[in-house]
Amino acid sequence: MDIGFIGAGVMGRPMAANLVAAGHRLTVHRDTPAARADLGTTVRYAASAAEATRDCEIVVLMLPDTPDVEEAVCGDDGVLSSLRPGTLVIDMSSISPAAERKIATQVAGAGGAYLDAPVSGGEIGARDGTLSIMVGGAPEAVEKARPIFDVLGSRTSHIGPVGAGQVAKIANQIVVGLTIEAVAEALHLAEASGVDPLAVHSALMGGFASSRVLEVHGHRMIKGQFDPGFRIRLHHKDLRLAAEAADQLGVSLPGMNLVHVLLDRAVRAGLGDHDHSALRLLRNERAD
Amino acid sequence: MDIGFIGAGVMGRPMAANLVAAGHRLTVHRDTPAARADLGTTVRYAASAAEATRDCEIVVLMLPDTPDVEEAVCGDDGVLSSLRPGTLVIDMSSISPAAERKIATQVAGAGGAYLDAPVSGGEIGARDGTLSIMVGGAPEAVEKARPIFDVLGSRTSHIGPVGAGQVAKIANQIVVGLTIEAVAEALHLAEASGVDPLAVHSALMGGFASSRVLEVHGHRMIKGQFDPGFRIRLHHKDLRLAAEAADQLGVSLPGMNLVHVLLDRAVRAGLGDHDHSALRLLRNERAD
Repeated sequence: MDIGFIGAGVMGRPMAANLVAAGHRLTVHRDTPAARADLGTTVRYAASAAEATRDCEIVVLMLPDTPDVEEAVCGDDGVLSSLRPGTLVIDMSSISPAAERKIATQVAGAGGAYLDAPVSGGEIGARDGTLSIMVGGAPEAVEKARPIFDVLGSRTSHIGPVGAGQVAKIANQIVVGLTIEAVAEALHLAEASGVDPLAVHSALMGGFASSRVLEVHGHRMIKGQFDPGFRIRLHHKDLRLAAEAADQLGVSLPGMNLVHVLLDRAVRAGLGDHDHSALRLLRNERAD
Repeated sequence: MDIGFIGAGVMGRPMAANLVAAGHRLTVHRDTPAARADLGTTVRYAASAAEATRDCEIVVLMLPDTPDVEEAVCGDDGVLSSLRPGTLVIDMSSISPAAERKIATQVAGAGGAYLDAPVSGGEIGARDGTLSIMVGGAPEAVEKARPIFDVLGSRTSHIGPVGAGQVAKIANQIVVGLTIEAVAEALHLAEASGVDPLAVHSALMGGFASSRVLEVHGHRMIKGQFDPGFRIRLHHKDLRLAAEAADQLGVSLPGMNLVHVLLDRAVRAGLGDHDHSALRLLRNERAD
């Protein structure tokens, strides 16, 4: 298929490479040295989102944040300015659910279809094509996108209408963030008590406290291995999206708010590019 | 073996019954109608902890809280007043780690050995003999107690010296409590967003958010099934022990503190005898 691919960052480049390897013809925006280094002449390059969209059946976006997607789709020289009726636009960025719904309405007004399809799994999942993809949108659009998802991920969950993918992603990041904090506090208590954290970890894995986070991030904390993984500053951004969504909906998410603050402290403490299991390190910084 | 069993409550009665069924001779304190109803004439009854201790090789305690264990062991007519040298005292209550260390020192002074061995698994685990047992104490004492543990539980973890069992239990309750709150907030966000919580739950089970709590307590929340299970008021007590331990150690556990406050709110809202997954219900009580 002819695919316009907008967003050639750390996630986007290996995703684009996997689509090329699966036989798709890609037009990539932006044209950067990093994109040229990773993708070379296997793709065409476009000077604008509009140019990447032209003559494509599917447009994929993988951008850092809400304003980037709004600009790429609705801005000058954006996707909408050259969208042909029938084109499917798939936003795989992690952004605001409310913004997705507004953008989707505009794309529909131009005759296109829209999916929000944020991912988890990080750089490794992007490279290995093992992302977990959470999709919001119409069932027909999801079916049309499935060959793309099957290349990029190992698990695709259709959550509901447009925006539902972002809601699931935010829910995921709330659970992961709070569980990391839980494990960090439990291991901190063990160490402060002079008790072997590995023995506590092992005992907890056998019961209701067991989780993927306890297993993976707990081991990282015990070994002091905080190379990413998933970076503190990205998890901080994801919980900013959670805080915005909670605010818009008028709901109270106190645990999320606490971890958002702790991630903010961690970024300010210079831990932004550490793995999110480095929330454990904040425990060593108490004053008294 | 001749076992003194102190504490014939909701947990203690089925545990005592399992020890009787395994062929042990029990002397139970206290002698209550509930104990008579469950244990009948299969055990002897003692009017005091001292009487239950006399002529026994092993004394097991299963009591509600720290002062109860202090009183039963060190008080008038307590275990210490009739303890023979060589007797093993096993405290399976969930109490303060620091208190266990003090009590163990006094038992050692009287020539006895001591283990702290709190459990998780609740009434069902006590009845089915499938408790998870977290043990602190000397290796020889753990070996001597192993036949008892094998009757009462399906998993015994020797964590470290006396007090380490309680530390592991508290760590467990911190992780479970925070993970329940995480799942409650994630599902609340989904429902407030108009997104099917079951679809979000299913998507999250496939990735790093997956946990026993997401699986079990998440389903309880979605179905609105809040019959215990493990009661809010007991989890509240366990996090009081966590707060005391953190205070004594001078460590900061902000997530634990938050969930402790939320459990307190839940008890005050009349949810104390609901399953701890009923933290989800607090999400419906916001003012604005």
